[in-house]
Amino acid sequence: MLGPDQCLFALEDRWTYAFDAGGDRAVPLAVVFAHTPDDVCNVMQYAAARRIPVVPRGAGSGLTGGAVPAMGGIVLVLERMNRILEIDTDNLCATVETGVITGTLQKAVEKKGLFYPPDPASAGFSTIGGNIAENAGGMRAAKYGVTKQYVLGLEVVLPDGRRVTLGSKCIKDVVGYSMTELFVGSEGTLGVITQAIVRLVPLPETIKTLAVSFPDIQAAGQVVPMLLKTGVTPCTLEFIDRFCLQAVRKTGLSDPVASLISPDTGAMLLIELDGDEDAVAKEAATVRQICGQCGATGIHSARNPAEREQLWEVRRSIHGALAGLCPHWLEEDIAVPPASIPDMLEKLAALALEQNLRILSFGHFADGNIHLSVSEAAGPLSPQRAGEVTHQIFSLTKVLGGRIAAEHGIGLAKKEYLSVNLDDDTLDLALQLKKMLDPSGILNPGKIFPTHDHQPGNPDAANGVYPPGII
Amino acid sequence: MLGPDQCLFALEDRWTYAFDAGGDRAVPLAVVFAHTPDDVCNVMQYAAARRIPVVPRGAGSGLTGGAVPAMGGIVLVLERMNRILEIDTDNLCATVETGVITGTLQKAVEKKGLFYPPDPASAGFSTIGGNIAENAGGMRAAKYGVTKQYVLGLEVVLPDGRRVTLGSKCIKDVVGYSMTELFVGSEGTLGVITQAIVRLVPLPETIKTLAVSFPDIQAAGQVVPMLLKTGVTPCTLEFIDRFCLQAVRKTGLSDPVASLISPDTGAMLLIELDGDEDAVAKEAATVRQICGQCGATGIHSARNPAEREQLWEVRRSIHGALAGLCPHWLEEDIAVPPASIPDMLEKLAALALEQNLRILSFGHFADGNIHLSVSEAAGPLSPQRAGEVTHQIFSLTKVLGGRIAAEHGIGLAKKEYLSVNLDDDTLDLALQLKKMLDPSGILNPGKIFPTHDHQPGNPDAANGVYPPGII
Repeated sequence: MLGPDQCLFALEDRWTYAFDAGGDRAVPLAVVFAHTPDDVCNVMQYAAARRIPVVPRGAGSGLTGGAVPAMGGIVLVLERMNRILEIDTDNLCATVETGVITGTLQKAVEKKGLFYPPDPASAGFSTIGGNIAENAGGMRAAKYGVTKQYVLGLEVVLPDGRRVTLGSKCIKDVVGYSMTELFVGSEGTLGVITQAIVRLVPLPETIKTLAVSFPDIQAAGQVVPMLLKTGVTPCTLEFIDRFCLQAVRKTGLSDPVASLISPDTGAMLLIELDGDEDAVAKEAATVRQICGQCGATGIHSARNPAEREQLWEVRRSIHGALAGLCPHWLEEDIAVPPASIPDMLEKLAALALEQNLRILSFGHFADGNIHLSVSEAAGPLSPQRAGEVTHQIFSLTKVLGGRIAAEHGIGLAKKEYLSVNLDDDTLDLALQLKKMLDPSGILNPGKIFPTHDHQPGNPDAANGVYPPGII
Repeated sequence: MLGPDQCLFALEDRWTYAFDAGGDRAVPLAVVFAHTPDDVCNVMQYAAARRIPVVPRGAGSGLTGGAVPAMGGIVLVLERMNRILEIDTDNLCATVETGVITGTLQKAVEKKGLFYPPDPASAGFSTIGGNIAENAGGMRAAKYGVTKQYVLGLEVVLPDGRRVTLGSKCIKDVVGYSMTELFVGSEGTLGVITQAIVRLVPLPETIKTLAVSFPDIQAAGQVVPMLLKTGVTPCTLEFIDRFCLQAVRKTGLSDPVASLISPDTGAMLLIELDGDEDAVAKEAATVRQICGQCGATGIHSARNPAEREQLWEVRRSIHGALAGLCPHWLEEDIAVPPASIPDMLEKLAALALEQNLRILSFGHFADGNIHLSVSEAAGPLSPQRAGEVTHQIFSLTKVLGGRIAAEHGIGLAKKEYLSVNLDDDTLDLALQLKKMLDPSGILNPGKIFPTHDHQPGNPDAANGVYPPGII
């Protein structure tokens, strides 16, 4: 059915596909590389007939275990289906295979004066199919929206191996139900995305990057609601807290960044404005004024692309710098309505104080998305404490009308917390949907749904299909 | 269960709710007005227990029969649930009851410096719930997208009377499947929308309106792809053809419009640009240049709001003017990829010539949406000819990668043509979805699906529930 270069069976090879960028791991029985949509159909038909779990995988850069073969079975790798089939400059859209790296697509369309706005931090290595399956967000969501706003059409292989083509190049399309949208964000549990038509927009004429330092987190948090009220929607508004800044500072910084981040700097905003050159200049003046009103201690505007890179380097260094402080952090990805950010930050500070925790935050403030890294004051959290702290953070999030997953998915990591945001009837609907599309439960089993709600696959499958499972 | 002012049983009252703005009509057994979401739950529970069809209805302004009680039963009118519950200027969103008139919402948020972009031509009288159920489009889709891009959350009553709350105020929200999106565009067949959270954006600083005349339709059609390539995305780009212009001209026009539309004028574009004042001025210069290159014979830029209204009057007069030419037109609402508009117009002209038809077109060109009015050269089409012509137009649409329904829904009017765009497996999925959510088929039966695929309701329902049916 597949060529010899399309299958891996050796244990050392299978181990390589036991994990994604999150903490869970499980070894599959086989790793299979699809080269065509037909390959995907064939694998699904084969697996469906034998009730073998199949876990679709893009680049494996997800943070919540979406590509981990939790119930064993087959890991279906899609990264070789990586052709950009068409960039349609007349109709402002692109047709791509599922395994195209998002950053590759971004660069290719920019060469033609077009822009694919969704920009997850993983864009340099994650695939467009994975981005669609997770409904990835990223830096520019407040102005441009998230991945789902850019998916015009999909080709999807259903769990039984049938292939359907959904949507079209038309922005306006009300033929039948919103099936395209149903697969966006379904985390590879309803179907395998093999191809997509994504919407593009004209490349903004100019982009302006500002780094602004503040004495404390509350001052920086005030900028967001004030700015939104002026009518300025920044393309990017990244927030970095004191702990992250100091961690980054220790790794060494050069000017202009070094002079912005002193030992007293309590928070930093990285703000990007894009669009017409004159309009951006006016918006930048508004941003400077509001940051000043909120008590900014320093503002630097990048004068050239090299300086822009330097400013971004601060944001990009966070992960590495934190790893130096503590070997393992509990990481969370939550969203609150943007105006509740100052409130949420205060509640998190109180929680840290009360429980003697380190809670570091950075994230995309204009759209209310906060990334948190949590540890004990002295080191990693025990698994039990991690569970308790997660629960407390999610409770605080809910009180403010927020969501427990903003852009990293539910996967394995958050499935037990789903009821924080979804009532019983909504969860029941989702389970019905899963059962309707995947009656034998072979597609990415064990994901999204709380374990007690969803017993995936064939419980009496013979021939050792399920072990090894999660290890 | 409901107050005496909430039910109508008299034949003359029921007749009033037998139709929407399309051509189909059927008399319901009862008309019921919901005042609260609980009323909706109670009506659905009552009807589900007795297997009585229920047809939700907003303002009844739909054009494809979505609110027509095709199988009799209860018309559930939602227009009294018409409160704007909150305009959240901090988080750029509004929470509204389903029966709020879209234009009322637009005006209310504009007073607060915000903007709800979806703008169907019916905005002055259609409801937000109806707009969401139909995934309404309108004038500004090329720049701002359609209704689905603005729905953050929904409260929905399911066919069995359960109420679910979907989504949130968060732009980034990946908790569970895209259930909110599933109900958008489901035409009232999967659930009854009772409340919505809609996303708002800052009100553009300025808006510029230009009317441009052309010697023929092909010249005007060339503007769209050329303009999109320059990076200018007009907020509105309305097209009006020779027939429509001449029909409007006969109703009497005053300057500045009268001097733009001579007996030789073959086509007109109504272009609006919005955003930052300087940026709009630059874009207007680009528009003028491209229109000139495409052979424009006259350009008028509105100098004040009154002139803007005059320019729009041309577009608004079309329906009335056409009614004067022919008592009944076959009306279609199709979409093609925008660059295919010149091609589609040519094919339609050839069809008109070959079949001796009048085919009048106007519509939203930047997003590829064409509205067509068709008659014989001498008068209305016979029902059989209307069916044949519809099939021919849809075939031409499909060849260009287009869709048979852009923004007016499928409803009763187009359900027999669904297979032009949806393959068997996709249609099968949609039917499964309908059966999953509405196992007894009582919610808006007879809509969307081809009649042979969907035998709605309880076929052996006693007590005359189904008649009168379509008359």
